[in-house]
Amino acid sequence: MWIVVCYDVNTETRQGRKRLRRVAQVCKNYGQRVQKSVFECQVNEMKLEDLRRKLLREIEEKEDNLRLYRLTEPREKNVETFGIFEQVFFDDDPLIV
Amino acid sequence: MWIVVCYDVNTETRQGRKRLRRVAQVCKNYGQRVQKSVFECQVNEMKLEDLRRKLLREIEEKEDNLRLYRLTEPREKNVETFGIFEQVFFDDDPLIV
Repeated sequence: MWIVVCYDVNTETRQGRKRLRRVAQVCKNYGQRVQKSVFECQVNEMKLEDLRRKLLREIEEKEDNLRLYRLTEPREKNVETFGIFEQVFFDDDPLIV
Repeated sequence: MWIVVCYDVNTETRQGRKRLRRVAQVCKNYGQRVQKSVFECQVNEMKLEDLRRKLLREIEEKEDNLRLYRLTEPREKNVETFGIFEQVFFDDDPLIV
């Protein structure tokens, strides 16, 4: 199945910025970054469970918001995208990995 | 149908920040804000067409990215949400309307 992961992490504090980086890092292992805080991931039930568990370990439930959406299949007919889409480094990407 | 609207607007310039406010304003007329730049909207084909047209009028295709996802129904079974969710004012909300 295809899911979309969206997150809002409160980056007012240093810990928040660290969480943001870690959340993005988790998502990168499961799918494709399409916006600053949106990933598209193709997963089965087991991978979804892993992903969910890892994300919940990173976010601070009192400060951040996380949403997982299941897309209507076939995906290519149910996603519309406009504007630029480049494989760029986002702010929270470390320059040195 | 339920759709999720996600946008990344380049806010490095004053024009970009203005676009961000205008994009959010368009979305507010069609659905519920759930994150800084994510809205959930219940629309029929005609409303979706209106929404798409209005959004495309606001974004700068060379700088911004817009994605519309169609959710699997029933929505309540296909959206998972974690963490805070408050009806708060976001940065791009005008304090005086």
